[in-house]
Amino acid sequence: MNEYLAATAASVRFDTERATKADLFRGDRLFAGLNCFEPGQRQSVHTHAGAEKFYFLVSGKARLAVGACEVDAVAGDIVWAPAGVPHGVVTAYERTVMLVAMAPPPGSG
Amino acid sequence: MNEYLAATAASVRFDTERATKADLFRGDRLFAGLNCFEPGQRQSVHTHAGAEKFYFLVSGKARLAVGACEVDAVAGDIVWAPAGVPHGVVTAYERTVMLVAMAPPPGSG
Repeated sequence: MNEYLAATAASVRFDTERATKADLFRGDRLFAGLNCFEPGQRQSVHTHAGAEKFYFLVSGKARLAVGACEVDAVAGDIVWAPAGVPHGVVTAYERTVMLVAMAPPPGSG
Repeated sequence: MNEYLAATAASVRFDTERATKADLFRGDRLFAGLNCFEPGQRQSVHTHAGAEKFYFLVSGKARLAVGACEVDAVAGDIVWAPAGVPHGVVTAYERTVMLVAMAPPPGSG
């Protein structure tokens, strides 16, 4: 690993108490991180007024909510959350690792 | 697949003539796409003056260049290209699929 390269597997961490988050890279315009879920764990539906986001399922299977939709996603699927559209993770069906990208980064702007 | 969900596997396409690109999602602030490489294919080093980008290796193995570094990346690795820092794919060692995120999207701003 150097300033440009990270093995996402090194940041995977599961916690039976709660879903975990890890930052991978953060710039002024773009953020990359990981969200890791044990089976049954969730992420409350929330909205980023001025930011776009996607989840890419690295492994596992989960039900996500975006707007009025609920979708079941498996490894290799990407779920897009436009700015202003509520989104979250309804439940993970199994241990699930999601790569998350967000622009602009959380906490900025 | 709906407006929020895409199976990246459905957009994977290899071409022995050249590396391929596919758009997955595009917003005002964030772009997600796929780059697919046959062994030996490359992406010329280039720079986005005002955009940050990452490559996430979904499968395969490739050597990437970022700034003064060359790094070998495998499935699960993420390579970060800050704004203004030259980057590209030196070579794919095998068939390689990269998820690419960029903020702001190419062609915008």
